[in-house]
Amino acid sequence: MNYPNGIKKEIISSPKETAYSNRGMTLESELNDSNEYYRSIEKAYIYKKPTPIKITKVDYPSRDKAVIKEAFFTIPSTTDYNGLYKGKYIDFEAKETKSKTSFTLSNIHPHQIKHLENIDKNGGIAFLIIRFTTLDETYLLMANKLIEFINNENRKSIPLSFFREKAYRIKDNYNPRIDYLKIIDTEVL
Amino acid sequence: MNYPNGIKKEIISSPKETAYSNRGMTLESELNDSNEYYRSIEKAYIYKKPTPIKITKVDYPSRDKAVIKEAFFTIPSTTDYNGLYKGKYIDFEAKETKSKTSFTLSNIHPHQIKHLENIDKNGGIAFLIIRFTTLDETYLLMANKLIEFINNENRKSIPLSFFREKAYRIKDNYNPRIDYLKIIDTEVL
Repeated sequence: MNYPNGIKKEIISSPKETAYSNRGMTLESELNDSNEYYRSIEKAYIYKKPTPIKITKVDYPSRDKAVIKEAFFTIPSTTDYNGLYKGKYIDFEAKETKSKTSFTLSNIHPHQIKHLENIDKNGGIAFLIIRFTTLDETYLLMANKLIEFINNENRKSIPLSFFREKAYRIKDNYNPRIDYLKIIDTEVL
Repeated sequence: MNYPNGIKKEIISSPKETAYSNRGMTLESELNDSNEYYRSIEKAYIYKKPTPIKITKVDYPSRDKAVIKEAFFTIPSTTDYNGLYKGKYIDFEAKETKSKTSFTLSNIHPHQIKHLENIDKNGGIAFLIIRFTTLDETYLLMANKLIEFINNENRKSIPLSFFREKAYRIKDNYNPRIDYLKIIDTEVL
């Protein structure tokens, strides 16, 4: 089923898991929890953007209630997450892969890659968060390293070894689950 | 019909107007054109977020095509527009009003106001763009002035006179239609 990443979780909404157990938690829900935690301690204001759709039919069963009766998923113009941290603009895309060996670049739209490049070149902090779910390894790859790979390699996927060398491993954490801003603190700011 | 601002324009999509005529153009479409222009000259990367919806039913008529069959508009967590300009985080909400005398505060959700306050307090550039359509006057009101009004006044709407005194008038322009970054340049940066 060829829907954009992240859709399924919104359709089949399961009861929220407690923060200290990540069994069955997706990268998306862990990131949402982590961002909520960052906001709660007034550390950063980073949100996931709504899923982009094109609405083609709407019903109004009552005067103050609209029901969308037909809509289609559309390709996002930008990445899924952005916001503010320490006065800086933060922008990233997050993806999971079941592969044990590489991350397939076609999982990210070309204009999303271009967007990350634009942000990186214009003073924003841009990166990918990639989780190898089978290995339970999560990496933060800065946009400039992603662009470097694309410009220098002729491959359609980024091997795990590239992440192990050029990306930062995000260790499991209690709260927030995915403390990616710790890496931004030590490696970028 | 009580749908969130901006929905109608997405449902009834009309042919795109040429940039030099604003007859019938909404604030939203002018802002989208302006942001597209800013991106095209690599000046700023500011986007409107997708309309937030809750999807409750999806059909898969074929293996690679999903059709949303039931969904509802939800209250946005943040403002409609954000992005990057000169290394700074930009965040704003835009609204039209037909009133000739004031802008009703209930047009902006309380948590959107709180969000603008958070951004302002944490080094981002946060503001409202309000158009009085009947008067054809468009204003940029910085978040700190909005908060000042809310804290000091007991009124449920901001009078036009407050905008004329404390906000910046955005003059009509050729390209971009709404050159709000010019005001950020001269008044904020």
